[in-house]
Amino acid sequence: MRFAVLTTLFCFTLTFSAYSQSRPRDLGITIGILPVGEYNAITDVPGVKVGHLTKIDGNNIRTGVTAILPHGENIFQQKVPAAIYVGNGFGKLAGSTQVQELGNIESPIILTNTLSVAAGIEGAVRYSLEHKGNENAQSVNAVVGETNDGYLNDIRGMHISSEEVIQAIMSAESGIVSEGNVGAGTGTVCFGWKGGIGTASRKLPEILGGYTVGVLVQTNFGGNLQIDGVAVGEKLGKYPFRDAMEKSDGSCMIVVATDAPVLDRNLERMAMRAMMGLAKTGGIASNGSGDYVIAFSTAEGLRIPYELEAQTLEKAEFIQNDDMSSLFMAVIEATEEAIINSLFAAETMTGKDGNTVAKLPVEQVMNWMK
Amino acid sequence: MRFAVLTTLFCFTLTFSAYSQSRPRDLGITIGILPVGEYNAITDVPGVKVGHLTKIDGNNIRTGVTAILPHGENIFQQKVPAAIYVGNGFGKLAGSTQVQELGNIESPIILTNTLSVAAGIEGAVRYSLEHKGNENAQSVNAVVGETNDGYLNDIRGMHISSEEVIQAIMSAESGIVSEGNVGAGTGTVCFGWKGGIGTASRKLPEILGGYTVGVLVQTNFGGNLQIDGVAVGEKLGKYPFRDAMEKSDGSCMIVVATDAPVLDRNLERMAMRAMMGLAKTGGIASNGSGDYVIAFSTAEGLRIPYELEAQTLEKAEFIQNDDMSSLFMAVIEATEEAIINSLFAAETMTGKDGNTVAKLPVEQVMNWMK
Amino acid sequence: MRFAVLTTLFCFTLTFSAYSQSRPRDLGITIGILPVGEYNAITDVPGVKVGHLTKIDGNNIRTGVTAILPHGENIFQQKVPAAIYVGNGFGKLAGSTQVQELGNIESPIILTNTLSVAAGIEGAVRYSLEHKGNENAQSVNAVVGETNDGYLNDIRGMHISSEEVIQAIMSAESGIVSEGNVGAGTGTVCFGWKGGIGTASRKLPEILGGYTVGVLVQTNFGGNLQIDGVAVGEKLGKYPFRDAMEKSDGSCMIVVATDAPVLDRNLERMAMRAMMGLAKTGGIASNGSGDYVIAFSTAEGLRIPYELEAQTLEKAEFIQNDDMSSLFMAVIEATEEAIINSLFAAETMTGKDGNTVAKLPVEQVMNWMK
Amino acid sequence: MRFAVLTTLFCFTLTFSAYSQSRPRDLGITIGILPVGEYNAITDVPGVKVGHLTKIDGNNIRTGVTAILPHGENIFQQKVPAAIYVGNGFGKLAGSTQVQELGNIESPIILTNTLSVAAGIEGAVRYSLEHKGNENAQSVNAVVGETNDGYLNDIRGMHISSEEVIQAIMSAESGIVSEGNVGAGTGTVCFGWKGGIGTASRKLPEILGGYTVGVLVQTNFGGNLQIDGVAVGEKLGKYPFRDAMEKSDGSCMIVVATDAPVLDRNLERMAMRAMMGLAKTGGIASNGSGDYVIAFSTAEGLRIPYELEAQTLEKAEFIQNDDMSSLFMAVIEATEEAIINSLFAAETMTGKDGNTVAKLPVEQVMNWMK
Repeated sequence: MRFAVLTTLFCFTLTFSAYSQSRPRDLGITIGILPVGEYNAITDVPGVKVGHLTKIDGNNIRTGVTAILPHGENIFQQKVPAAIYVGNGFGKLAGSTQVQELGNIESPIILTNTLSVAAGIEGAVRYSLEHKGNENAQSVNAVVGETNDGYLNDIRGMHISSEEVIQAIMSAESGIVSEGNVGAGTGTVCFGWKGGIGTASRKLPEILGGYTVGVLVQTNFGGNLQIDGVAVGEKLGKYPFRDAMEKSDGSCMIVVATDAPVLDRNLERMAMRAMMGLAKTGGIASNGSGDYVIAFSTAEGLRIPYELEAQTLEKAEFIQNDDMSSLFMAVIEATEEAIINSLFAAETMTGKDGNTVAKLPVEQVMNWMK
Repeated sequence: MRFAVLTTLFCFTLTFSAYSQSRPRDLGITIGILPVGEYNAITDVPGVKVGHLTKIDGNNIRTGVTAILPHGENIFQQKVPAAIYVGNGFGKLAGSTQVQELGNIESPIILTNTLSVAAGIEGAVRYSLEHKGNENAQSVNAVVGETNDGYLNDIRGMHISSEEVIQAIMSAESGIVSEGNVGAGTGTVCFGWKGGIGTASRKLPEILGGYTVGVLVQTNFGGNLQIDGVAVGEKLGKYPFRDAMEKSDGSCMIVVATDAPVLDRNLERMAMRAMMGLAKTGGIASNGSGDYVIAFSTAEGLRIPYELEAQTLEKAEFIQNDDMSSLFMAVIEATEEAIINSLFAAETMTGKDGNTVAKLPVEQVMNWMK
Repeated sequence: MRFAVLTTLFCFTLTFSAYSQSRPRDLGITIGILPVGEYNAITDVPGVKVGHLTKIDGNNIRTGVTAILPHGENIFQQKVPAAIYVGNGFGKLAGSTQVQELGNIESPIILTNTLSVAAGIEGAVRYSLEHKGNENAQSVNAVVGETNDGYLNDIRGMHISSEEVIQAIMSAESGIVSEGNVGAGTGTVCFGWKGGIGTASRKLPEILGGYTVGVLVQTNFGGNLQIDGVAVGEKLGKYPFRDAMEKSDGSCMIVVATDAPVLDRNLERMAMRAMMGLAKTGGIASNGSGDYVIAFSTAEGLRIPYELEAQTLEKAEFIQNDDMSSLFMAVIEATEEAIINSLFAAETMTGKDGNTVAKLPVEQVMNWMK
Repeated sequence: MRFAVLTTLFCFTLTFSAYSQSRPRDLGITIGILPVGEYNAITDVPGVKVGHLTKIDGNNIRTGVTAILPHGENIFQQKVPAAIYVGNGFGKLAGSTQVQELGNIESPIILTNTLSVAAGIEGAVRYSLEHKGNENAQSVNAVVGETNDGYLNDIRGMHISSEEVIQAIMSAESGIVSEGNVGAGTGTVCFGWKGGIGTASRKLPEILGGYTVGVLVQTNFGGNLQIDGVAVGEKLGKYPFRDAMEKSDGSCMIVVATDAPVLDRNLERMAMRAMMGLAKTGGIASNGSGDYVIAFSTAEGLRIPYELEAQTLEKAEFIQNDDMSSLFMAVIEATEEAIINSLFAAETMTGKDGNTVAKLPVEQVMNWMK
């Protein structure tokens, strides 16, 4: 509550500002029971970087790109264990079958809009081919997710270029991650309110391993909004099937990172739990929703070098099944919080054809939360 | 409220009784937004029958069998479209691969304890072989789920016989379904409290098709209990990883029935949503949890006769993807409610080695709920 | 038939030409026991069209695009039931998760090289957006497969444009399908010999339904070549692991079409059988192989209109499990033959860095076959 | 050729005997290119043991049990990495979901007939519970496969008891494995001829790691029999759909063992390749076929102890993706040979209702093979 002193002076404006600039946890919404990492962001997992390219142009372009880098080195040469879980596959996710077959990711993860997946792939591939050290690469598996921002964005215009995708990758940084109307979240809608990018993290106590789990989401889905258990959607009169015309389609891309040494099978199990976090916000994974979870481990001992010596065996430490449960809980909590974070951070936006999506009425919500 | 008259007379006891015998919805806990069916039970789906065999014997036997019949006719001859979704596969579910390959179920669904799956299969197979009309059957796919009641029950004793499984099947009825410490729920534990059998239903408005979705659960899992969004587990001091020794393992079997004409692929999508309902109760699908969802449609037009005329094509009406979302929401809501129902219905039980599991302190909980 | 004049002059050449211009079946290689369709091609399935864009440019560009259209109408508005089976997922197939979730395909199927998947998606999306009647489309699921032609083609140059993909789509035709070094098969290598595009079909006897199954393959994989059971690879001294350095990586894209009214689950089962046909040619689905099967049904009664009336149910005839086996056998036979056809049709090619891949020595092979 | 001396004396009979008692490889049928292990059996993988319980009783009982033990120690306490691949799921395989979720097997693998899966589970569970050291076990995942021997066996009589299953386990041995009409293969039928148990192995050259792959099959399926590429089924006039009434249903259980240090994901990939070996024998995985592959690694460094110290990480060597291809080929070859071995070893049998299944006419077949 860094604005606490001021609040007594300028009540209305103040409250508004405070809410509009604070993350839910700062406002007292404490989702779950596990402690959070330093930034309460996916970047709390050491090495992970996030870059946004936000494209707001004229009246009709409201879109962007978000790139997540598992580490700061050459990802193609130092692949990371990974898995993908399909919550509801009405989406255009690229790269899933190779991740599932080989259990690794070899390129930056790209999020963008539905009709720009081609640009996302081209950008990630060009970035990888041109990266120093990859001169011999002839095959790159780009992992590109999307949600449909077509209500606010002229999506048919396919306004994202592969160059912009590379820009998003190149701009990726550690530390604080911008949330709300940025990057791939620029034009998204969630529970009928403005959605966007959200992120959160959990840090397990040392006795449970001390590992960090970070989550980043691109929220664009519907349902019956619940915030830390409170049925906000019903109170606000926004929920699915209120009348027969009301749909609650949309999608959610979820990226889960951890520094825990977890191999692909258990990463897939972690990824599945992210959908349980989404469920707790009131999402229903409706028919039209493309809900995907991409999970990876940054553990250095588990990296997969591109050039394997013939018959070299890896000698690696990795977590066994029996010790996974606390990581599962961390994923559930961080996903739930990341989604709520995206709603609190997003601002009202007007876009294509004058369509407007209002931001979540945070002040009103906070009254119910107490 | 059959005890309503008494309430004015004996206030304290009364409140206690009322709580101990009332279902959450009767007490004012209204989960979700969709209306419920007549019994708020899986049997609201026309034709579905449930039978329990409860086995409480001496100090150490606390177990049982629950049988769910998709319809009252010869199931082997009139198979139903079906699907199975594996939430977390630490379980011994029998019959899953054939259901997934062929998209149908051909026998009663049996729930029991972990080490009695063999008895469950033998019972369902013998029942099917001996059923009038199945004299030529040489192959029966029994679907048998389980959870581990070994804390209260001498599970290593394998006390369920195939005859008892057949008894459960033969006793199956429509109408009210007993909940709590009955059948396969006799010895189960949920969120640290006594679990058991629970059931609930949703009936879609006519404009959404008017279909009914019914759910039955056998609750034996852990996590961070939330009741309609209220963090009851934390308030009661029972939650996972409170200290390093505390585990939250366990399992949940979930059976979803609908009269909507839904084919196997969309039944699998419905089944997946049941895990989202489980998530809303605070379950985390821990490593040791065997969480499975079995879904079937009772729609008569979609039944699969055993004896197909060569090259006969089925001419069938079935729901398309675009109309599934309201059924998804119904599954989520009914599953969440069925789990909570199991907790409210279960009573304190002492069993094997004097182990005791207390019932959920409903009165205390109800105070928080208000 | 450009060598026709020469044949009268040089007898030896003649034999060679004869072989180089005939399909295996014309030469007496009769794979399997089922009869073939009119063209022994995927286009024997009524409505299916195939278009090739072959790109041979300078010394280093040897690549292309092959487009398969399930029918000649607006595919986005009239989606077809479909499934995808992943034989070995070391590939960049786009669109798989949506096909699996929704059970349909809504765009032309594109095959190209590994690093041109982005162009493939962009082309298929632009084609769909611009197609008359799709003015409101905001989401298109492009299905794009690939194999790696980087030995003969400057694959890192990413020489396929989205316009060329659209050209391949627009050029699609019924009837005879060119095989060998055309379209997406221009630069591929199979069993150490020049691979390419191949196609074949089977037509079931009326008593088994009279349905047609057509297969088209893009062959780029390795193993221990067998032709109709004869171990040609060993005889020719080309087989995997002959010495430790020898790899047998590569990929095979397989497209299966049928006019049988088969829904998505059984289409997936058909797709799986295509890998059994591949196995019979000696393929081993090596680690580096991206082996995918895309199957669809053209049955008109099963098309899925884009604009569904709310709650409209489909009344559809479809084949039940019990009648699938002959379709399975048709897939196995047609896939095996399509792969062999690709080898017989391909010609020796020199490409990138002067790399040369010889055509299969057909004459020698035919001696062994007798 | 242990009968070599006799051959010169009694030519006709001799030839017959030789064939009836020799394995195909002894007769000159050399499938594939990799060398075989000492016994050309699954037991060539060090530690693996096989036990048969053959039950031939009266006129109508022709069935049995085959148990495969991954190693000779306490399997429950020393679980092995494992995976299951479902080729065609028309079967009653028990235990698959836990193997897939946890990536391990913790009990002997049991094969039996379709309606005796319950006995198989009960036997494997009782064996595990009663095994020294498992006094605290409360949950055992039995892996039980089956095929349907109902043509020769009174399968509805459910003649296998859990005690007989335990006998099969207790009798398991290293070394030579009996083939043909033994154990779970006692009453099976394959390609219209008498099927049964078969086994084979491959030993990779040292330069490829020197690992052994062993396969054991229970053959009960149909199709268009090919022996090392020769279309024996057609020549003998036994093939599917010869007339409309002819079915080719049935099933094949396949168990793959290796001493290579392979984790579960790559074991699943190995398992999938077994179906490619089955394809090469002419199997078509018909609708009614239950075709399953169970694969495990015996590598000591990868065993999973039941009692894990909290947060203990495993430090393990395991093979990476890039080195898997030769193991894939070994699986394909050994599976193909194991199936053919089962046919050569099986003898003509008369059983239930006087039904007779003839043994493969080996002599005739051998003439074609030359």
